[in-house]
Amino acid sequence: MDSWSYVDTDFEESYQLKETLFSTANGYLGVRGSFEEGLSKKIKSVRGIYINGFYESEEITYGEKLHGFPDRSQSILNVIDTQEILIKINGENFSLENGTVLFYERNLNLKEGVVTRLIHWKSSNGDEVKLVFKRLTSFVQRELFLINISIEPINFSGELELISSVNGDVSNIVSEDDPRIGTSNAKALSVVEVIVDSNKSFVKATTEHSKLAVVGSISHKCSAKFDETIEKGKQKITHSFKGQILKGEKIEFTKYAVYTDTRRHENELKQNASFLETSLKYDFKHFENLQKEYLHVFWEHSDIQIDGDLEMQQGLRFNLFHLVQSVGKDRFSNISAKGLSGEGYEGHYFWDTEIYIFPFFLFTNPDLAKNLLNYRFTILDFARKRAKQMGHTIGALYPWRTIAGDECSPFFPAGTAQYHINVDIAYSIIQYYQVSEDITFMSEKGMEMLIEIARLMHHIGHYNRNDKFCIDAVTGPDEYTCIVNNNYYTNVLTKNLFNNIGKIWSDLSIDVTNNLKSKLKFVESELDDFKNAGIKMFLPFDEEQNLTPQDDSFFNKKVWDFENTPKEKYPLLLNYHPLTLYRHQVCKQADTILGHFLLENESNLETIKNDYNYYEKITTHDSSLSTCIFSIMANRIGSHDKAYDYFMNTARLDMDNLHHNTKDGIHTACMGGSWMSVVFGFAGMRLVDGVLNFHPNIPKKWKSLDFKINFKNRILKCHLERNTINIKLEKGIPLSIKINDTIKIIS
Amino acid sequence: MDSWSYVDTDFEESYQLKETLFSTANGYLGVRGSFEEGLSKKIKSVRGIYINGFYESEEITYGEKLHGFPDRSQSILNVIDTQEILIKINGENFSLENGTVLFYERNLNLKEGVVTRLIHWKSSNGDEVKLVFKRLTSFVQRELFLINISIEPINFSGELELISSVNGDVSNIVSEDDPRIGTSNAKALSVVEVIVDSNKSFVKATTEHSKLAVVGSISHKCSAKFDETIEKGKQKITHSFKGQILKGEKIEFTKYAVYTDTRRHENELKQNASFLETSLKYDFKHFENLQKEYLHVFWEHSDIQIDGDLEMQQGLRFNLFHLVQSVGKDRFSNISAKGLSGEGYEGHYFWDTEIYIFPFFLFTNPDLAKNLLNYRFTILDFARKRAKQMGHTIGALYPWRTIAGDECSPFFPAGTAQYHINVDIAYSIIQYYQVSEDITFMSEKGMEMLIEIARLMHHIGHYNRNDKFCIDAVTGPDEYTCIVNNNYYTNVLTKNLFNNIGKIWSDLSIDVTNNLKSKLKFVESELDDFKNAGIKMFLPFDEEQNLTPQDDSFFNKKVWDFENTPKEKYPLLLNYHPLTLYRHQVCKQADTILGHFLLENESNLETIKNDYNYYEKITTHDSSLSTCIFSIMANRIGSHDKAYDYFMNTARLDMDNLHHNTKDGIHTACMGGSWMSVVFGFAGMRLVDGVLNFHPNIPKKWKSLDFKINFKNRILKCHLERNTINIKLEKGIPLSIKINDTIKIIS
Repeated sequence: MDSWSYVDTDFEESYQLKETLFSTANGYLGVRGSFEEGLSKKIKSVRGIYINGFYESEEITYGEKLHGFPDRSQSILNVIDTQEILIKINGENFSLENGTVLFYERNLNLKEGVVTRLIHWKSSNGDEVKLVFKRLTSFVQRELFLINISIEPINFSGELELISSVNGDVSNIVSEDDPRIGTSNAKALSVVEVIVDSNKSFVKATTEHSKLAVVGSISHKCSAKFDETIEKGKQKITHSFKGQILKGEKIEFTKYAVYTDTRRHENELKQNASFLETSLKYDFKHFENLQKEYLHVFWEHSDIQIDGDLEMQQGLRFNLFHLVQSVGKDRFSNISAKGLSGEGYEGHYFWDTEIYIFPFFLFTNPDLAKNLLNYRFTILDFARKRAKQMGHTIGALYPWRTIAGDECSPFFPAGTAQYHINVDIAYSIIQYYQVSEDITFMSEKGMEMLIEIARLMHHIGHYNRNDKFCIDAVTGPDEYTCIVNNNYYTNVLTKNLFNNIGKIWSDLSIDVTNNLKSKLKFVESELDDFKNAGIKMFLPFDEEQNLTPQDDSFFNKKVWDFENTPKEKYPLLLNYHPLTLYRHQVCKQADTILGHFLLENESNLETIKNDYNYYEKITTHDSSLSTCIFSIMANRIGSHDKAYDYFMNTARLDMDNLHHNTKDGIHTACMGGSWMSVVFGFAGMRLVDGVLNFHPNIPKKWKSLDFKINFKNRILKCHLERNTINIKLEKGIPLSIKINDTIKIIS
Repeated sequence: MDSWSYVDTDFEESYQLKETLFSTANGYLGVRGSFEEGLSKKIKSVRGIYINGFYESEEITYGEKLHGFPDRSQSILNVIDTQEILIKINGENFSLENGTVLFYERNLNLKEGVVTRLIHWKSSNGDEVKLVFKRLTSFVQRELFLINISIEPINFSGELELISSVNGDVSNIVSEDDPRIGTSNAKALSVVEVIVDSNKSFVKATTEHSKLAVVGSISHKCSAKFDETIEKGKQKITHSFKGQILKGEKIEFTKYAVYTDTRRHENELKQNASFLETSLKYDFKHFENLQKEYLHVFWEHSDIQIDGDLEMQQGLRFNLFHLVQSVGKDRFSNISAKGLSGEGYEGHYFWDTEIYIFPFFLFTNPDLAKNLLNYRFTILDFARKRAKQMGHTIGALYPWRTIAGDECSPFFPAGTAQYHINVDIAYSIIQYYQVSEDITFMSEKGMEMLIEIARLMHHIGHYNRNDKFCIDAVTGPDEYTCIVNNNYYTNVLTKNLFNNIGKIWSDLSIDVTNNLKSKLKFVESELDDFKNAGIKMFLPFDEEQNLTPQDDSFFNKKVWDFENTPKEKYPLLLNYHPLTLYRHQVCKQADTILGHFLLENESNLETIKNDYNYYEKITTHDSSLSTCIFSIMANRIGSHDKAYDYFMNTARLDMDNLHHNTKDGIHTACMGGSWMSVVFGFAGMRLVDGVLNFHPNIPKKWKSLDFKINFKNRILKCHLERNTINIKLEKGIPLSIKINDTIKIIS
């Protein structure tokens, strides 16, 4: 096993899963790892190419539609297909299902960002050929996807034909039974233009409701002088290359595919043509090198090295690689629950971004982290509109799930009711400021978001008879208990916002605060209201048991009968009516425990330990967002073996398909969680009052652990062995940190 | 004003509303009061004929479908149209929109069950004609609907043409914005046969999914010898009658329409033909007489006489008449929320039946009441199936809304979560037994339902840390607060069931109990479990305030800001997102107060008074099920003026269109509530431990109040003046009752 690659040697098994795992993406464009030559229908496949934030919007139908239910969905679209290249050898179609496969290997190289497929194939006529397919989705030219094929006839000379297409006749998948996959209309793109311009072909397609357009183009380079014929259909253009190949002589063929869309490109056709033109000046090797360089810088900042645990090492690198592949790099896009690797969750952006993925980028690539917050600023007006729809007279309510900014959750108890997304975003903004000290961002965007979020959270709450600030009728992260009062997680994160907003406000210049006051009709007495609500925030607590209830009523409910729940009934959400779940003490994922992790100082360690032990027994981890948090907190309370077990379930969740649904796409939150499990868990890093604190304790089997942290314009190089940590300043001026609560100067 | 009729003299105003108010029905067939000759499209109309329990089932689409969500809807269908009769006078189409209307009056005669429309009309040519339209839906031959027209030329002799049709090309209305109206497919019936048999015409139509068929047929009688020509279309058959009329000579024309359907009629075509054949032997007068006789008996048992309040008298009679029109009289049908007068709520049966309508029939026409319970027995297997879908290993869970028995509520927080429907049904069964002493029914059906309901309620509950029996995650009657723990109403009605089931069990014969034990695998220790849970039932109570919280968390919430809620924002459910409502103390309708009314002895009067005063302030009465209960309980606590005000809002709710939606159908529950307001409210009648108790207090403006009560095979004739009541035994053997808690023998 090589920790810098993911290798497969059995193409037939779980083909659809591997389409996900071998997907290549760059944050703008994502291409599932489908075979260029296709497969017969008996092998299940979801062939897809996605553009981050490119969506169609359909009317949502409800059996019973109540006031404020979202009218329209937004679903990421499978866009114009450019993956197809058919290969004919002496007239026989190349396919792994025909002839004899003498060798097969597919390899995702995490350092180089290239997927390579090596094949030695014998046709039914006995013609042997070695094929190497390479593909990359360029990090440097984000509109560009490349396929490079080298073909070597081993025991014959003869005719070769390559048939490559660009095809606008594409659909999304539809699943009505699993709520985690989209249910919208399958056929959303209509081809409106099909253009052939010498050896370049363009297909333009539009959506009916979101009024967007996408252009996909192709062109080719072939090392041999083959005849090229072009066939233009109504939705598809096919380029055929035909010629003679000689035994032992390799030929090389490169397909250039370029995508542009009307959300980013002013003149999508013209710009597409220009990108294609420019790209064609360079050969595949050029882009391969650029890809390697980009990733070299990425890994330089982001790599985690584990000595002594190849499996986890590989899993981690696989995850971090997919995160940089998935993360949006412009203000129109964020990072969706499935990245750009599949259609699960309709390509929506959730709170996953802020709480599970943001920390990785924040501490390794703060610019990418900032961009995630820029996206939230881009959709702030949608959040303001949504607040009004939800009956709030002030503030902004971020959508539970969205692409372009409109709330798209059709089931509000486990959707809109999760008001915590608002304070999750606030938590990230505050964290970003503490880590980056980026006062410009706070002045231009951050404080405006904080104010609008704080207003909303203040408006939803109220003081009860005991003068405590309460928040009723919300849903916390754990969707197995919906619409509750005083969800600990929501309240404690709201308290965090109320406690911090005033301090940050006072860091801003007079010009900035004056400007905000006038723009937002903001009065400083609102800050007093926030402060007061923060001080008086009600945090549910069961003194008798020294336990934190997930919400006001949680401990009054019956504990789920785990003993009599057969394995096949998990995940519970697919097998029990929500009311059955709501009636019981049973958690899909970390909720109170997550609150403790994010705001550890709000409880004492004894309570945290008790809570951990209590909630662990009733948590199913049916959500992929759960085990990383349990891993981190197991480390926090000293259960290091458990921490490692939970980490195993996190670090290789997609690679080993532990949730059985990676075929629909990777789990980006869990991937971010695996980074957190290492840095916040085994290294025990916390940011408290602006100071980094480490409580290192790495698994026994690990000889050492190395990673870097980008913090306040410094780069810290951390080297850990068992219970010790050694931190060096790679860049920047000296700084105090804490190790096991003891201050240390790093210089 | 005549209290035995409802009269209209302005056809143009609120035409659609009047289609509802003038609808004629018999519990099987319901015909909206549309004009035979039709109207231009500028006048809004929903022309419809409905068969109780005749429905189509469509797939319910959800934006996000979770486990256990109902798959399919059931919607009452607008069936084959037979209302149309066009009239041509000297070639000119008769229409109230053309020519000159010299006189117009429509009259619903509550004693005779006939709607009469009197018109004096002058055509644009100056031809004057007097027309009398009469229509009745026969209580005696339930498949029969009749229209009788008499036409008298006043100032001319000339040509008359009558064009009458039976038409299978019909649709339902669709409204996507108001959840209280159906949202299913509009065109659900397909015509499969069109038959003309001499002067009788038949149209047969079927549904695609529910696989039902309906046959509508017509035939005619005309007093003049007119030529009859028949035109057979693909979906419609038209009979034209043409001839000469002479000035001053009336002619009379009767249209016979007969409906059969495959839920009731084994050979729907043959039986239809036979009913039509038989009906044609008699003239309109015959059926008019039978109708009058049927209603004479009905009013003999059911009438309430108020001396001194014509408005309320009229409203009450109008309501009771519509109830007998609406109530299903076979085991396939119940009484829908809108009766057979419109398509609102898709023709579904709710808990309205048991809690609001059942008492009227129980105390006046116990056989009709029994039939309502028979229906629940018919669908018991569906309730068992639903219990399993909802994760219960035992018992039966009645659907929140249904026609044929399957749960059809697509929004479970204000649907399936209303487990109280189960104990509402149990309450009615127990009440039926106490009033009727019908041990046969209890042996054959009643106890089986009670056991299955009790099992379910026992399974959903659990004992908390204080050994109290709790019921979590349900919704009470008030849909402005959903998914709560220990809803007082639900818990107190469950307690009632647990307290009573053992006693009733001991009334049954050994044969019956043995049979039930074996059929239901029932063991008597279950009775102990029920009893124990009844004793330990948790009923939320706030000692500090001496108030009953609607549920565990109700008093912790913020009180709704009524002062800043403009009038046009009511009903709140159409203007606020459910979460906004859930977050506040605000009630759509009586909930705790209703619990007090049904089970008064579970609280002391002081608490009931406090509760009344508290909940009155926060109840919007956005539901038509609310004011009747507040009226009754206002009387109970001595607020007699308020009681009358609430009664006014109840008794004429449809007649005066107080909720602005009677156009979609009458409010049967409110109609039942108006009877309850009088008998349980002003007469203060209660049934406690098998004894009737009266606390009379009639409004000052009423000279007297008279009604009859059918109780334990007796008929009691009650005459009230102010605070006195005089009860006479009209039928049956002597009996003790209580008046103002003092025992009295009625003989």
